[in-house]
Amino acid sequence: MASSSRVLPALRRAQRVSCQIRPAWASRVQAQKRWVGGTSATSEPKQPDAEGGTKGKTAPANTIKFTSESYPELKRNSKFAELTPEHVEYFQSLLGSESAIIDNTSSAAEDDVEPFNSDWMRKYRGHTKLVLKPESTEQTSKILKYCNDNMLAVVPQGGNTGLVGGSVPVFDEIVINLSRMNKIRSFDDISGILVADAGVILEIADNFLAEKNHIFPLDLGAKGSCQIGGNVATNAGGLRLLRYGSLHGNVLGIEAVLPDGTIVDDLSKLRKNNTGYDLKHLFIGGEGTIGIITAISILCPQRSQAVNVAYFGLESFEKVQEAFKEAKGQLSEILSAFEMMDGESQILWKKAKNSKLPLEGEYPFYCLIETSGSNTEHDSEKLQSFLEHVMDRSIVSDGVVAENQTQAASLWSCREGVPEASQHWGGVYKYDVSLPIAEMYQLVIDCRKHLSDKGLIGDEDSFPIIDAVGYGHMGDANLHLNVCVRRYDKAVEKALEPWVYQWIAKRNGSISAEHGLGIAKAPFVGYSKNATLIKLMKQIKDLYDPNGIMNPYKYIGV
Amino acid sequence: MASSSRVLPALRRAQRVSCQIRPAWASRVQAQKRWVGGTSATSEPKQPDAEGGTKGKTAPANTIKFTSESYPELKRNSKFAELTPEHVEYFQSLLGSESAIIDNTSSAAEDDVEPFNSDWMRKYRGHTKLVLKPESTEQTSKILKYCNDNMLAVVPQGGNTGLVGGSVPVFDEIVINLSRMNKIRSFDDISGILVADAGVILEIADNFLAEKNHIFPLDLGAKGSCQIGGNVATNAGGLRLLRYGSLHGNVLGIEAVLPDGTIVDDLSKLRKNNTGYDLKHLFIGGEGTIGIITAISILCPQRSQAVNVAYFGLESFEKVQEAFKEAKGQLSEILSAFEMMDGESQILWKKAKNSKLPLEGEYPFYCLIETSGSNTEHDSEKLQSFLEHVMDRSIVSDGVVAENQTQAASLWSCREGVPEASQHWGGVYKYDVSLPIAEMYQLVIDCRKHLSDKGLIGDEDSFPIIDAVGYGHMGDANLHLNVCVRRYDKAVEKALEPWVYQWIAKRNGSISAEHGLGIAKAPFVGYSKNATLIKLMKQIKDLYDPNGIMNPYKYIGV
Repeated sequence: MASSSRVLPALRRAQRVSCQIRPAWASRVQAQKRWVGGTSATSEPKQPDAEGGTKGKTAPANTIKFTSESYPELKRNSKFAELTPEHVEYFQSLLGSESAIIDNTSSAAEDDVEPFNSDWMRKYRGHTKLVLKPESTEQTSKILKYCNDNMLAVVPQGGNTGLVGGSVPVFDEIVINLSRMNKIRSFDDISGILVADAGVILEIADNFLAEKNHIFPLDLGAKGSCQIGGNVATNAGGLRLLRYGSLHGNVLGIEAVLPDGTIVDDLSKLRKNNTGYDLKHLFIGGEGTIGIITAISILCPQRSQAVNVAYFGLESFEKVQEAFKEAKGQLSEILSAFEMMDGESQILWKKAKNSKLPLEGEYPFYCLIETSGSNTEHDSEKLQSFLEHVMDRSIVSDGVVAENQTQAASLWSCREGVPEASQHWGGVYKYDVSLPIAEMYQLVIDCRKHLSDKGLIGDEDSFPIIDAVGYGHMGDANLHLNVCVRRYDKAVEKALEPWVYQWIAKRNGSISAEHGLGIAKAPFVGYSKNATLIKLMKQIKDLYDPNGIMNPYKYIGV
Repeated sequence: MASSSRVLPALRRAQRVSCQIRPAWASRVQAQKRWVGGTSATSEPKQPDAEGGTKGKTAPANTIKFTSESYPELKRNSKFAELTPEHVEYFQSLLGSESAIIDNTSSAAEDDVEPFNSDWMRKYRGHTKLVLKPESTEQTSKILKYCNDNMLAVVPQGGNTGLVGGSVPVFDEIVINLSRMNKIRSFDDISGILVADAGVILEIADNFLAEKNHIFPLDLGAKGSCQIGGNVATNAGGLRLLRYGSLHGNVLGIEAVLPDGTIVDDLSKLRKNNTGYDLKHLFIGGEGTIGIITAISILCPQRSQAVNVAYFGLESFEKVQEAFKEAKGQLSEILSAFEMMDGESQILWKKAKNSKLPLEGEYPFYCLIETSGSNTEHDSEKLQSFLEHVMDRSIVSDGVVAENQTQAASLWSCREGVPEASQHWGGVYKYDVSLPIAEMYQLVIDCRKHLSDKGLIGDEDSFPIIDAVGYGHMGDANLHLNVCVRRYDKAVEKALEPWVYQWIAKRNGSISAEHGLGIAKAPFVGYSKNATLIKLMKQIKDLYDPNGIMNPYKYIGV
């Protein structure tokens, strides 16, 4: 959209899209790889690197503050055993290969162990001295049984791309890393059912499926690193949820290992199986607290040939809702994304990128629509007709339609560049939440006022906050609230928490739409789940993991 | 299709469909109402009525054999208390209204209680003396708490339309019928989220949604009687699963009451909520064995404006698979049904109905395709182009496309009339199973041979079996195997069971694709779930229902 000739001033002149292009996300992945912070986090790393803010190079892992220091209220549970040479010997004899074990009990492998101890945000850092990389379900079973028998705490770890500190140790928990379990076991191109090891990287699975003209029913910024087992364990949402639904609907079966070593073989390849409680759902979103997922079976849809993208400006959040309703009605089966960005987020993006927005005028709200279907012409016609309809009714004020893949990627960057832009001037406090759709944007308005009342927000450098912006997946009523700051400030943190969580709780929203609880949100689960549900969840935890060795100090365990 | 002028002899001349009609299922519902046996059962009522077979009027409830007599191995568990006048008094004072309680403890209400004691297939009949109809979650809670404290066994009951005897008592369990909890609580036409009491009848919910241009993401033959709470409790599959996915994906929240009276309020109206174990999935398909669902929250899609139906003949099951693969690719987002019927099933239908088939020639296999989308012209064009493609490649041999709603309903009747036709000459043994798609039809072939080897199948009256036919939801790899008999015969039953279940188990299929376990399949769960899974399921049952009062003698409890 950089060239003005490509920017159509008004929607009535929007061009027919004839883009038999690869799906837009193919290019989005590239775009996202430039900034690791592409997905949204709860709150920001408390430790900006030496070059200031989050703009510079990230600090080396061993300079990151230990989680045990950031969360001094957490104490190592003395019921857990400490690693002995005998323990390490057992694991060495079990796993055999040298590459399968990283042993830092004698401080000989300090650098090697660090990447497994800390997360990519440089926010969480544990004290593990042992990393195990089983290559089979049987090895995983033997590891867990031994740990359970010997009261050794463990942390299951996939691609370690999470945002809530769920996949790194807090104290000296043993890391069980799934990366060597990375085989695609089977794919049936008639049913579209894929069976694969938990350690398969999402992008590799998706590329494999692309060759078979299918698509993994989940897409997210970290796809180049995250593993499908971790995706299932954290019930990842991502970019395709509006179209393909949640993992609870798409995952057909799992293979998992319980703490006592029991292998749960529920790797069904059936769409319908009504023979008893569907236990796999406890592991989906269980964040490795009751067992380790070692393989999944998942239903994959056919890949869409035609992808169209449009971007438009609107006068109010009411109009955004109207536009969404019309899109659901008219684009219906081809609608694959409906993203909302407020005007402030787009101004921020424009300034940070020193770039132009796709539309000439300024609007309080913007939306990005993507369609994916099997027929380019039909889809373009539907999109065109939809856009004319919403223009005629003054629901939408102005808009553009991408004419090719480059333009589509460019439009997407206005949405996907917001997280990076949010932290451009120093840092950002992030909240990824779910709310009743009508009240979704009110959180941003109320938050802005709340921060303003506290005298924290302003144009001058003396104010810590630049602005609070809102954007997100309108189709899933999933809002990203970003509070953009010039510097991290305890006063800002205090003003935000638990104020944000309380606001959400009053409207029966979710404090974690996408990223689970981990360590970051564990203390706040009560804002989204009532006491009865928490009690029932603790029952499940105690039932499956009576010794509490699985991913301790996190989730509902604190 | 009755008039030959409406039947197009070859697909190349198939007409463009211009049917801005109500969705085909609107008419299907009418058609199905003519025969209650429209959905498929495990095995047939052992007690044909007085007029012979299943053709005549059904026998009055009080002439049905008691389940306790059909299953003499089941004994009443003596740990359960027997009803006393004090118990009844408590319930009377709790429920107040006379219409909320049917008390037959003194045999004064024998006729009134019978409809709640037996199922519509006239196969199962219990000995209950008390039916309770709470009108609120709170009343349900108090009933269950009292029953749990007093060791009174209960059976939750919705529309009582199940096929496996799950919703009627075996002995003197108290029936808790949800029919008075029948309010729609809320609907948000932006998000499409419906919240409703468990006792709302499916068709009423769907009609309510139709007025709002939405659709309930589940449809089945019994929609005029079944209740949405029962649908969720049995994880009903039905006709829309291919398009909209399973209830595990669509149900966003539930409200349920545990045996101890605890009200589980997990009635989330959010598409994304990642804050702990997603416990609602234990109740979906839990068949009322760990609690009673009192309300659900469910995501409902927009209603499709355009519906097209095509019917065609193919030379082999391999071609059926090819056609399915092509349909997934080309019809992709608009494909809403892909049904398979073997030639034998269509001949049976033709003879039973004394009618013509839509195509002139005879084929080993037939398929019915339905598309549902937002644009009539686009959909017709896609369907046309798909049909030309599969004709050109000789995947499909001949076919017709419905030109209007009447024709669409007529085509559907060739598929939906098979269950009725199957029992036309006396009776039928039915199996509703799920298999890897490539092996799906082999069950019918092997079964036919197996029955033939046993000398049970033949054209003359001396043979008990007329034929074994196969049909079902190709899109879900869900096969209906119907063994059509001239009369019920122990030798047939012995030849079929456990032979069918063993065949399925060898291929990791499911012995119950759609209808749950109930009492009918409880003894056979081991054919679809391994010992570990059964052990884990029993753990869950014991955790939630330590006294075992919920729906005893069924599911995994035996």
